Amino acid sequence: MKHWDCVAIVGVGLIGGSIGLALRNRGLAKQVIGIGRDTAKLQQAMQSGAVTRTTTDLNEGVAAADLVIVCTPVDSIVRYVRQAAAACPAGALLTDAGSTKAEIVNALASGLPVGVSYIGSHPIAGSEKTGAAHATADLFEGRTVVLTPTEQSPADKVDQLRNFWSSLGATVHVMTPEAHDAALAASSHLPHLVAASLAGATELDVLPLTAGGWRDTTRVAAGSPELWTQIIGQNRTNILASLARFEESLSALRSALETKDDRRLTELLTEAKRVRDAVGS
Amino acid sequence: MKHWDCVAIVGVGLIGGSIGLALRNRGLAKQVIGIGRDTAKLQQAMQSGAVTRTTTDLNEGVAAADLVIVCTPVDSIVRYVRQAAAACPAGALLTDAGSTKAEIVNALASGLPVGVSYIGSHPIAGSEKTGAAHATADLFEGRTVVLTPTEQSPADKVDQLRNFWSSLGATVHVMTPEAHDAALAASSHLPHLVAASLAGATELDVLPLTAGGWRDTTRVAAGSPELWTQIIGQNRTNILASLARFEESLSALRSALETKDDRRLTELLTEAKRVRDAVGS
Repeated sequence: MKHWDCVAIVGVGLIGGSIGLALRNRGLAKQVIGIGRDTAKLQQAMQSGAVTRTTTDLNEGVAAADLVIVCTPVDSIVRYVRQAAAACPAGALLTDAGSTKAEIVNALASGLPVGVSYIGSHPIAGSEKTGAAHATADLFEGRTVVLTPTEQSPADKVDQLRNFWSSLGATVHVMTPEAHDAALAASSHLPHLVAASLAGATELDVLPLTAGGWRDTTRVAAGSPELWTQIIGQNRTNILASLARFEESLSALRSALETKDDRRLTELLTEAKRVRDAVGS
Repeated sequence: MKHWDCVAIVGVGLIGGSIGLALRNRGLAKQVIGIGRDTAKLQQAMQSGAVTRTTTDLNEGVAAADLVIVCTPVDSIVRYVRQAAAACPAGALLTDAGSTKAEIVNALASGLPVGVSYIGSHPIAGSEKTGAAHATADLFEGRTVVLTPTEQSPADKVDQLRNFWSSLGATVHVMTPEAHDAALAASSHLPHLVAASLAGATELDVLPLTAGGWRDTTRVAAGSPELWTQIIGQNRTNILASLARFEESLSALRSALETKDDRRLTELLTEAKRVRDAVGS
């Protein structure tokens, strides 16, 4: 397993902080540098043991890094990867942890210095919680991380990145950025919109009568509106396509309900249960 | 706190089994009789300690009961309450645990023998799991139970029933059957349809890329299609009204997405988060 001399993490929230904790817990990096703008958050990452050093100066923070991971909200990833690529040593590997990939990977397909490689990552391991306070060393264990290399990505760097995420306990899938975004629209971004619609449509006087069902179905709606606006904004077309499929599915249930067709209703609920049961609790 | 001489539970699944365990754990009933058609399930309830005696003969099982609780699927509740009412002693209190109330309570508003009282209950404490194997003595602790008495319900019996559920640790709300069904359409039945639509609309090749968000949002879709067809069928009009409200809410999000109106998208997600945060995790 490759050990890193110096890993720079840009943005030490839930994902960045958890990467730091996992690296240090497993003894996989000599130095882990936490880079951010908010010194209180950097301080917290330092105290939790997620990083060995912190800085608010990105250029200085990545100057000796052999691996740079940008864990900021999706709208700022391209900018920070570009800046880090210009300031890090030749041979460095750069990646990110953004929930969307096509827009980011396409923007970074050209214009980076020769000798550094950017390959997109998406650890599918977030939650409605954010911030370093929720970071844990085992966040990636048993989780899926998608890598989205392009034809230009050097094979040895793809292997390095694959090994990096595997070393944190994750299962790695390799996909095109476009296939990633289409899948995540269905598996994550649409569920977010649906959960938010359901929460938003619930009148306040009904809340005392909610139980596990409503709470589960709406849980992700507690996520950050700002972060999700960015994510959704970068995957508009795929989400609208997934939404159309959802609306068809909902419309079939509505029509069974309107026509009092209980046989059809049971059929549709059975098909949904079959899909749900395939995933487990 | 009232102690019962003999409580008869018709249907010893998740709810019925949990009532038995809670009564016996708290020493609230001398005898708890489990009544059902499936001797293997009755045997399981006996072994888990949920009941002190079992029978497949409803008439015989309720013959000495001062409290009868019908915990069967909603479509059979009216029938079993009628049968139990004809066979139990004068003065007995009968209730149920069904997820819908208006149709059941209205059907039982007349035709019961003089001297026995039926009052509807709904312990809001189910889950996507069913069966006595998941029953627990603390299922009702901190949960809400709705009682739906009518103008004909004797006040002392309403108090008895309220005390019964309180003695199992629940918080009791009293509502009309109609208000209950309207609220539950929004808090439980619609979320079920939405979760099922989302699961049903998810293509199988996307499942490996699902994480906590999809799993939470679709969890209840693992519930029994047959039980849910009955529940939904008894609350059609309210569910269609809740569904219309949900579709408006979803449509507002879709339109913000289509018009790339990120400010509006953030507003809608913020409003949804406000509702969701009011409930807690």
